[in-house]
Amino acid sequence: MLQKEIINELVKIMGKENVITGREDLLCYSYDATPDVPDPLPDVVVTPVNTGQVSQLVQIARQYKVPLYPRGSGTNLSGGTVPLKGGIVLSLLKMAEIMEVDAENLTATVQPGVIIQDLNNAVAPHGLLYPPDPGTVATATMGGSVAECSGGLRGLKYGVTKHYVMGLEVVLADGQVARFGGKTVKNVTALDMVKLFTGSEGTLGIITEIIVRLIPAPEARKTMFATFTNLSDAGNAVISIVKNKVIPATLEIMDQVTIKTVENFSQIGLPTEARAILLIEVDGIPEVVEQEADTVLQVIQNNNGRVQMARDEQERDNLWAARRAALPALAQVKPTTVLEDATVPRSKITEMLLALEEIAEKYNLQIGTFGHAGDGNLHPTILTDERDKEEMERVHAAVKEIFEKALALGGTLSGEHGIGMAKSSFLEWELGAGGVGVLHKIKNALDPEGILNPGKMGFNGGTGHE
Amino acid sequence: MLQKEIINELVKIMGKENVITGREDLLCYSYDATPDVPDPLPDVVVTPVNTGQVSQLVQIARQYKVPLYPRGSGTNLSGGTVPLKGGIVLSLLKMAEIMEVDAENLTATVQPGVIIQDLNNAVAPHGLLYPPDPGTVATATMGGSVAECSGGLRGLKYGVTKHYVMGLEVVLADGQVARFGGKTVKNVTALDMVKLFTGSEGTLGIITEIIVRLIPAPEARKTMFATFTNLSDAGNAVISIVKNKVIPATLEIMDQVTIKTVENFSQIGLPTEARAILLIEVDGIPEVVEQEADTVLQVIQNNNGRVQMARDEQERDNLWAARRAALPALAQVKPTTVLEDATVPRSKITEMLLALEEIAEKYNLQIGTFGHAGDGNLHPTILTDERDKEEMERVHAAVKEIFEKALALGGTLSGEHGIGMAKSSFLEWELGAGGVGVLHKIKNALDPEGILNPGKMGFNGGTGHE
Repeated sequence: MLQKEIINELVKIMGKENVITGREDLLCYSYDATPDVPDPLPDVVVTPVNTGQVSQLVQIARQYKVPLYPRGSGTNLSGGTVPLKGGIVLSLLKMAEIMEVDAENLTATVQPGVIIQDLNNAVAPHGLLYPPDPGTVATATMGGSVAECSGGLRGLKYGVTKHYVMGLEVVLADGQVARFGGKTVKNVTALDMVKLFTGSEGTLGIITEIIVRLIPAPEARKTMFATFTNLSDAGNAVISIVKNKVIPATLEIMDQVTIKTVENFSQIGLPTEARAILLIEVDGIPEVVEQEADTVLQVIQNNNGRVQMARDEQERDNLWAARRAALPALAQVKPTTVLEDATVPRSKITEMLLALEEIAEKYNLQIGTFGHAGDGNLHPTILTDERDKEEMERVHAAVKEIFEKALALGGTLSGEHGIGMAKSSFLEWELGAGGVGVLHKIKNALDPEGILNPGKMGFNGGTGHE
Repeated sequence: MLQKEIINELVKIMGKENVITGREDLLCYSYDATPDVPDPLPDVVVTPVNTGQVSQLVQIARQYKVPLYPRGSGTNLSGGTVPLKGGIVLSLLKMAEIMEVDAENLTATVQPGVIIQDLNNAVAPHGLLYPPDPGTVATATMGGSVAECSGGLRGLKYGVTKHYVMGLEVVLADGQVARFGGKTVKNVTALDMVKLFTGSEGTLGIITEIIVRLIPAPEARKTMFATFTNLSDAGNAVISIVKNKVIPATLEIMDQVTIKTVENFSQIGLPTEARAILLIEVDGIPEVVEQEADTVLQVIQNNNGRVQMARDEQERDNLWAARRAALPALAQVKPTTVLEDATVPRSKITEMLLALEEIAEKYNLQIGTFGHAGDGNLHPTILTDERDKEEMERVHAAVKEIFEKALALGGTLSGEHGIGMAKSSFLEWELGAGGVGVLHKIKNALDPEGILNPGKMGFNGGTGHE
């Protein structure tokens, strides 16, 4: 329990209406979208309404050495927002203003609580697009997605969140407010602090304002749907599309387990006999789209796939609905869904797909795999039950082997979900002792008291779920 | 002078042939392309041939507390490679292997000494392109351009160096070798150390291997040349092109001082009566190029410009030769060329151009301005003489006012030249005390002895040229 005195100070700063202490309310902030991690209650949840309040709040947390957990909508998939060591959850949902859409400079300035989709709705009338497109685009906040450097469906062609963050206002661990970057395309004024805070998972500072880059929205698009009777063919088609110099806006895969589960869940007529489906969308100006679609068709046929083009927006929406249903469909099969995002160089995707099948068999687990094949960013999804201790042991062993395999193929522990609690114990596998040492040095330098989101990325005693 | 013992150790590690101590040779490493900064002799120059040697070298520097200055071709424009406090210059020119061009993953892996143009020559046969295109592309190294996060002519459409660096091998200040990132499009494994070391100007570690992203080379391009009798019209055309959703590959400006000087220098028929020239290149697939060129033509006409299309590659090359001659042409007018790169949001470019004219008049200085107008990245170039103390005072006052103006317009101290020595004393103007504090904390955490490139970015007593 926090001292009464601290609660009083928080109320003084933010008003009673922004300080939550009721147990039922606190419960909602004890977890995020991550399975198989602890879900401790925070002591208090605060909802500041401006940067000044965040700054004062950080100073109090520092003064009393109370942990502070910044949080958006809690769609995190690596336990990044869980209040592991109790203390104060800092919800940024009340700082949700789209401050500016600047069509001349192709930028938008937003507060962290803005929902990603709302930003896109605001820029669309200007013919502009904010490309990052995580699966939770309708729920997740800009602040959360910047703090986690979200990826999503458009990574291959358009990059991920970090490629769009141009400027940040950050409340530092000592309460000072700093601004880095801005609206210029180029900026090399000293160390790139915009990129350091992007993806820092709330461990280095609290993001209170964000300037992002926008692009002219593509004029046209074409969506294709390809089925394969062989997993390798599907993987090879992915590699070959890019080798043929077509960079699709999205290039997604679903394996047979996922296809069957989605079909069972939503009955939209997916071919359950297929070993894999690819969903491909090319976009740009109409002439480019035509050319690229032709190339994709040919590549798929050359790799023994059957391809179908969405004839209209309705068919397109159905296809994407199927893809977006993958996780919810898988999630309803069993009580616990362990969703991984080990990622490999695109050329290794066939190998990784086959390895995942082998791992499922070896540990006798049900694994559905879907994901952003064009990025080499697969989501092997283990369907299990947290209460089954014996099966969970096999799950943990399988997860380890997935990481080992991804790293052996030149990949990474996490393509887009972050390290959080879930992967912190594996960090050294990828970064070595020297690399992990660098992370800790930076963390200790910027947050010497360890008040910011303790227990994540292996900082301040975070050791993961094992 | 270094102790004999240190030189002996260096020879033991790298062999005599890689340890340079002759005064005439040392002289070549006392300066880079930056005017108006000190040019002290280093004590020794070493040319290691592999990462192991770099690591041993760093350990020796640390043990004896001797400063270490990593260096590529020395094309730096902010004094970033000057051995300000004596010690060891570490030339990476002997680590110059293109280790791999991976056409499937669209990546290349290079050692730091590779010349940028050589990388592009190596990837061109695969139909690929490494887009960053600093003016010194034929001389500058990959290591130097990553350490400085070089910009150049293609920033608007293609971004700058940091948008292409996917992985790094870095020798840390304690001699440990760490690897960050890799060949995956997505990677959120902990803090983004790839981006932190990119643009760190050699102050945090020595870059010994680089993985960069490549893109399919554009199939077609069109180059246009527009003249204006009014500076505001030119600025407004720049803003309007992008507002019309055309993102040119390059969008360059030359003002009248520059036009006259280039014409005088190279006599290629530039219209010396014009107040400004824009050089615009659009690229992509042929149909896109046609459409975009049409839009550009119209925008220029709407802004009272006269436009001419390069009819063939020869005409195109001539136009770009004129643009690339801007700096050498200006540089031969007077003994000293103070080249700035204050940068503003694109929408403020007209205001900045007019302000530069006023500043030239106010301080009675000759300033030619050219640069990457599409990025808001102008290069006001002051033609002066270091030996003229009185004029240099006016130069320094003008530079200050240029920075003030750029920042007041929401811009940055440095778009692409870095901070180095030249701009370190102005850092707080942009970043505030809190922001500068963050930089110092990170520097102290990663290089507590201050051996890496001391005197740059305001670290370890670097205070700039004033």
